[in-house]
Order: sequence, then structure tokens, then C-alpha cells
Amino acid sequence: MAGDVKSKDKEVVKKLEGLGKEVLGQIEAGKEPSIELPVRTLGNIFFDKKSKTIKLGDKTSQRQFLNIAHTRKFMQTTLVASEIRKIIQEEATTSIRDLYYALKHTIADTTENTFEDQGESDPLIEDIESSLDLLREELHLAASSKGVIVGNMKIKDGKDTIDLTRMGSGGWGIPSNVEPERIEIKDLDAEYILFIEKDAVWKRFNEDAFWKKNKCIIITGRGQPSRAERRLVQRLNNEYNLPVLALMDADPWGMYIYSVIKQGSISLSYSEEKLATPDTKYLGLTVKDVETFKIPKEVTIKLNQLDVKRLNEMKGYEWFKAKEWQAEFALMKEKAIKLELEALSKKGIRFITETYLPEKIKSKDFLP
Amino acid sequence: MAGDVKSKDKEVVKKLEGLGKEVLGQIEAGKEPSIELPVRTLGNIFFDKKSKTIKLGDKTSQRQFLNIAHTRKFMQTTLVASEIRKIIQEEATTSIRDLYYALKHTIADTTENTFEDQGESDPLIEDIESSLDLLREELHLAASSKGVIVGNMKIKDGKDTIDLTRMGSGGWGIPSNVEPERIEIKDLDAEYILFIEKDAVWKRFNEDAFWKKNKCIIITGRGQPSRAERRLVQRLNNEYNLPVLALMDADPWGMYIYSVIKQGSISLSYSEEKLATPDTKYLGLTVKDVETFKIPKEVTIKLNQLDVKRLNEMKGYEWFKAKEWQAEFALMKEKAIKLELEALSKKGIRFITETYLPEKIKSKDFLP
Repeated sequence: MAGDVKSKDKEVVKKLEGLGKEVLGQIEAGKEPSIELPVRTLGNIFFDKKSKTIKLGDKTSQRQFLNIAHTRKFMQTTLVASEIRKIIQEEATTSIRDLYYALKHTIADTTENTFEDQGESDPLIEDIESSLDLLREELHLAASSKGVIVGNMKIKDGKDTIDLTRMGSGGWGIPSNVEPERIEIKDLDAEYILFIEKDAVWKRFNEDAFWKKNKCIIITGRGQPSRAERRLVQRLNNEYNLPVLALMDADPWGMYIYSVIKQGSISLSYSEEKLATPDTKYLGLTVKDVETFKIPKEVTIKLNQLDVKRLNEMKGYEWFKAKEWQAEFALMKEKAIKLELEALSKKGIRFITETYLPEKIKSKDFLP
Repeated sequence: MAGDVKSKDKEVVKKLEGLGKEVLGQIEAGKEPSIELPVRTLGNIFFDKKSKTIKLGDKTSQRQFLNIAHTRKFMQTTLVASEIRKIIQEEATTSIRDLYYALKHTIADTTENTFEDQGESDPLIEDIESSLDLLREELHLAASSKGVIVGNMKIKDGKDTIDLTRMGSGGWGIPSNVEPERIEIKDLDAEYILFIEKDAVWKRFNEDAFWKKNKCIIITGRGQPSRAERRLVQRLNNEYNLPVLALMDADPWGMYIYSVIKQGSISLSYSEEKLATPDTKYLGLTVKDVETFKIPKEVTIKLNQLDVKRLNEMKGYEWFKAKEWQAEFALMKEKAIKLELEALSKKGIRFITETYLPEKIKSKDFLP
């Protein structure tokens, strides 16, 4: 695998150097130095019906060194690209905050700093990601990751082979970089992936060895999942054709997290083709479940104003246009309730693993 | 190990039943039912110089069934105790939110709910923990846990033995219950524990295999650590005499987290003897380090008003009275700066693992 990492790194360094060579070429030719960058504002972001993910359009803009409004950013962009090359060549991975600090200095004989805060360097990293069509991970920049995973599979990571059936009551803490050059999936024997919103619920499924009895992989991102959890699920779906089932709270927030797993988010539009898993289905919870499973009214929660506002927004999203979703939103509004996963405990500690999940899967009662 | 779990569970159930039997005895004797509970307000919380942890004093109060101000809480307390017994007997572990939902119902022939929100059930769990001198984990209630750990040791957890030297670029995701009945520490070969505040920094230490070269255990709680991370570190310290070194941002927040690891927190005072590790030392960062390691001024951050306020509060805490801490606080105030761990990247990507840590350890330049 180490060889793969090296050849991938070479490819990335070549792209970064390409950026530098272009600017150098412009200078040598007596032209105005300029970098072409994809536009990342809302007007250039759309839901692509073909890939079924949120995507960046093909509008671009020029960052010009001699345009005084661009000069500082131009200088910063080349600094960021050059630091990333250095990180890759040192075979290290760092965080975007490390990168900011590494580059921050007062320019000689001036009182001007290269960067004033991280808010200046972060968007430039995104510029480089989107213009070179590279993932942050391929640039050796680590995003935070906080999820855990277990199930019938092994992970080969460097010299270590990690058996995800033998993690005890814990799980494997997912690293930030799960690219194929780093992380190899081995001996997978599972029929689907269960993507669980909440850590406490994931723990229930792990304690009950649900993944063993039901031949599945269980993963949680502990709330809104990080890039790494989403990328790993996409790889499991792509490489092994594993269906993905999402288990979320029945509230606008849980349903929004589902949509990020499935279609992606606006803020990461330029990378969603490599992060989102359109082949995800929504297993639950739904407001419809309240009736189907006779869940007592006392454990439902009244929708608040913010919920209703969010619900109305979500109703309009292109990727929620399916009649099943529209019906669920309408029912939620009509009943004016939401429901947390833990509320199923009212029906018994193991109701969720022993009754709810098996019945939902048997009846294929999913939302698209 | 399973045998140990069962005998521990029996002991806990016996204590819970003791509570019930006492109330029953009172009723049968025609007395007013009453439960004695430790007082958990500030006036009964102190820093115990003997155990060197924050502790609960011995003031108690009576919760009386026939006192109309106590009746609802009395009913709720017995419900919570009874549900915990059920959870233990079903050999399950649940979250405190699950427990709340499991118990919430409308009392027959009334419109009164047993509980209106989780804010009603959580303090009663604490009442039971403190009055029976049991940890939440011993009651089979899982707190959230989000940390990861690697290093020269193995963990035996149920039937699984997890080798913490072979976790790849990830780590073992620490479960919520790390009590000796559940988690056995095996084949430990390390000289100290490095408790790292930030996940991104932990990743640097893992990527550089610092734990292997320097024979240590590296753990992070990803910000303020959860109970499980603190309890595991206490066990490693107690059972193996491993010193604990904390690596935090040089700011009031990082230093406060350190004090929680070392002495505990007010809110968990009733359990701190089992969670805190007084034998922890503060390795860094300090404002003094800025000079020692010639850290450029540009990567330090100006103290804000909130920082100064917090600093002044912390100066007064009994456990920060040591002259070394008072000097550090004075220096921070004088220079009016703070410093993040990532700022060390200014000196090179691996400066923190290859220069800073080794030099600090060599010179034993720690705060008490």
C-alpha cells in the first residue's frame, strides 16, 4: 500500500507544481499572473440529477496578481499551495489550523502579516481542492473525525490489520483519511450498512451484537458525520455494492443529516461526488412510525417554531421532492410532533434492535 | 470476566433493593416514608486535601413522601431506582435519555406525566449515584464517550482482546464503561500517559508513532474529556503507577480541562474520587514556553476579556495555589497572550513530537 500512497502523492505534487509553473510561465512571458478558480458561491452550486449529488457548476473566475483587490489573496494562495507541497513531501498530514500557523509570519521589513486569522487560509484550501479536483485528504490535510465503526470486515491501514468484529464494547475510531491508498477494506461479509445518527443508539446496536446477528456494518458520526465517515460509507457502497440505511431522529435535523449523507451539503459541493452516497435509504424514524408501532404520545415532542420553519424549507429542496417525503413532511406538520430514537425505549430497552429494525427491514418501509 | 460483571451487578442490585426495602419498612411500621440523600449544592462540595480531589461533604437531607414539596420527586426517585434495577437485570446498558423515555408515562386516570423532561430525571440519577456511592457506569447507564487511545497495551473487553499497538491511523474508540469488571488492561509496556487536549494533535502523535518510540500511551478526549477517558486514565495511573502528563493549549480553557483531569469538577464532585487523577502533571503549553522555545510572536493570540476574567477566577482556586501556577498566570496576564498547540507548527510540522515534547520531558519542565 505504501507504494500506492507514494504514486498518489506524486500525482498531487505534480498538480500543485502545475499551478506554480503556470504562474511562472505567465511572468516569464511578461503576462499578468493570474489563476483560474471555480466559483464556489450559491449561484454555481446545483443538484446534479445524473450523479444525484450536490455539485459545483463550471463557472470560473480569475484571481489576478496585479488587481489590487486580489493581490493579497493571490500571494496567500501560492503560499498555501507551496506549504501543502511541503507537507506532502515530508510525508506528514496536518490540520488546516496547523497549516494556518505554519504560514503565518510578518513579511520582512513590513508590519504586514501573511495571514491575520484562519478565516483567510481555509477558503484558499477550498480553492485549491476545487480547482485541482482533489480531496482535502489527498492534500494531506486532516479534517476532524469523530465516528466509530464495527461489523464483519477488516481494515488494512499501513502495517496494521484491524478486525472490526473484535472491538469489544468500543469501536474503531475512524481516522480522517480513509482514501483507498491508505485504507484497504478486507474480508467484508455484510449485507448492508446501518448509518446511525446518535452514539448512544449505536452503543445499543453494538451491545446487542446486532451487526453479528444481522450481518451488517454499524457506523455513527456522532451527530452530523465528518467527511471521513461519509467517505468510508461511500467506498463501502461503491466497492461492495452495500446498501446504506440511515437511522435518524424523526425531526428536521435528523432528516437533514440524512440528506447530507445521501446528496451532500452546499458547503462541500466541490467534493460531494466523492463524499455523498446517493444510494442511501431512510429507514427511520418517521412520524408514520408512531402509528405503525403504537408509540405512546407522551414520548413524542411538540414541534417548535424553528422545526416548522426548517420543515418548510426542506419541503422545497429538490432532493426531497419524492411524494413519500412530501407525505412525511405533511404528516409531521399535521401531527406537529417529532420523535427521538431514544423514545423507542418506552417500548422496552431492546425494542429498537429486536422489533423495530427487523420489522422495518422486513417490510422495506423506507423513504427514498 | 463475565463472572465479575455478574457479582458486581448483584452487589448493585442489592443496594438498590436496600433503598426500596427501607421505604417499605417505613410504610409497614406506619412511619412517614423518607429517603436520606447527600446534599449536592456548592456548600457541601470541597477540595479534599487528603484524596487531592474535589469531593462531596457529609451533609444530607431527607426526601419525604408526605411533604407535598417532595412527593413528586419521591415518586420519581423510586421509579428511577426501579428502572435501573430492571436495566441491570436485563443485562443491558442504556443512556440517561433512554431511561427518561422509558419511564415517561401519563399516570392512569390522571393527566399527570411521571416526568415532563429529562431535566427531572437526570438529578435523580445523581441522587442515587451519590447516596449509594456507585458510579453511573455501575448502574449500567452509559455517558457519552468520544475519545480514542493507542499505545503499548492490550484491552480485554468481553471475548475480544484489542491490541492498541495495531490501530492503524485510527484508534480504539473508548466505550462509556471502562470499569474493571468490563475492561481488563493487559500487557502494558509504557512509561507514562500523554493526555492530549486536541484530536488534531493526537493525530500528529499517532502519525509520528510517538507512542512507540517513546514508550507511552496517547489518549485524547477531543476537548473536555468524558467520564470514560478520565476513568481509564485513573485506572492506568492507579493500577500501573503510570505518571500522567497533560498537553493542552496555553489558555484558561486548556488549563481548566487539566484541572478537571487532575482534581475533578464541581458538577461530578460525588464521583471524583473514582474519576480524577491527582497524580497528573501539566507538561504544556505554557506562556513560559514562548520564550524557552523561541516561538514567534505572530502565532500567539491576544488574551480577550473573557480570558482575563477566567484567569482571575482560576488564580483563586485552591488547587492552583502552587507558586508555579501563580507565576504562570501572572506571566500570561503580563504578556497578555495565549497559545494554541497548533501554533508550534510554525517551528516545523514535527517540532511538537521531535523537539518540544522530548525537551520538556528531559528537563522535567512541568507545572504541578
